[in-house]
Amino acid sequence: MDNPSEACFRPALDGFRWDGVDRLAYKEEGSALFKAISRQVLFADPELACELRYFEIAPGGFSTLERHRHVHAVMILRGHGWGLVGTAVRPVVPHDLITVPPLTWHQFRAGLDEALGFLCMVNARRDRPELPAAPDLEALRALPAVSAFLDLPPASV
Amino acid sequence: MDNPSEACFRPALDGFRWDGVDRLAYKEEGSALFKAISRQVLFADPELACELRYFEIAPGGFSTLERHRHVHAVMILRGHGWGLVGTAVRPVVPHDLITVPPLTWHQFRAGLDEALGFLCMVNARRDRPELPAAPDLEALRALPAVSAFLDLPPASV
Repeated sequence: MDNPSEACFRPALDGFRWDGVDRLAYKEEGSALFKAISRQVLFADPELACELRYFEIAPGGFSTLERHRHVHAVMILRGHGWGLVGTAVRPVVPHDLITVPPLTWHQFRAGLDEALGFLCMVNARRDRPELPAAPDLEALRALPAVSAFLDLPPASV
Repeated sequence: MDNPSEACFRPALDGFRWDGVDRLAYKEEGSALFKAISRQVLFADPELACELRYFEIAPGGFSTLERHRHVHAVMILRGHGWGLVGTAVRPVVPHDLITVPPLTWHQFRAGLDEALGFLCMVNARRDRPELPAAPDLEALRALPAVSAFLDLPPASV
């Protein structure tokens, strides 16, 4: 690559991978519950005040149920699944937009037959997630739609 | 909508539109040259240090040739076309990633037969674009690939 400007272009590869982007295990605090999710950091330039990441949840998998002060700005890119934000549960498909406001419980679940892939924009400087304690889970489970979302394979919601 | 959490989900509509998102004319300084491009602001939350916009260039159209201090983080979402960043010209297709470094001339052009749509993440606080003066254009045109990009319908590049 003789021209350094060429490095500004990073082609998409097959299977929602990108040239020069590592596919990372989803790292969380020890007690966090999650399943079958990977992370690729697409943009993390020190000149940018945000990062753009691509998460992919394999069929039947789910992200951590958590909340934090920082906001998530999500665009679904692949497959289908369900999202929980606050007390709302909704099916999600490609190009849907989801905002996770501050200190709002949220989780994503892939369908049983297809992966769920999504972009997530976050502030580069952000707080650590908080996991639900027993009273938080109890309050969430008091809502039938949320309880169904948390308990059941996504295809059954 | 009884549950305010429902508003956190904004479904994708047909044709790369989004529920609750206005499609805006692409506004630039008076002398800027551009053609057939629209803008939708997908995320501009005051809690987020960046914004995420979706731009769409109609077949044969192009964005402004410009540079600025702030960085663009681009993901192609639809169609195909060509990008110029610095001195590199490359074809672009969905999910390709393009970084526009500080003070780097850049432009996107749609193919003649298909629109080019892309996400662009930028810092919420950013400087205004600068347009090329005659010596800048002369320097760019000294490079055959860049000159071809600037002059020709994209399908001919």
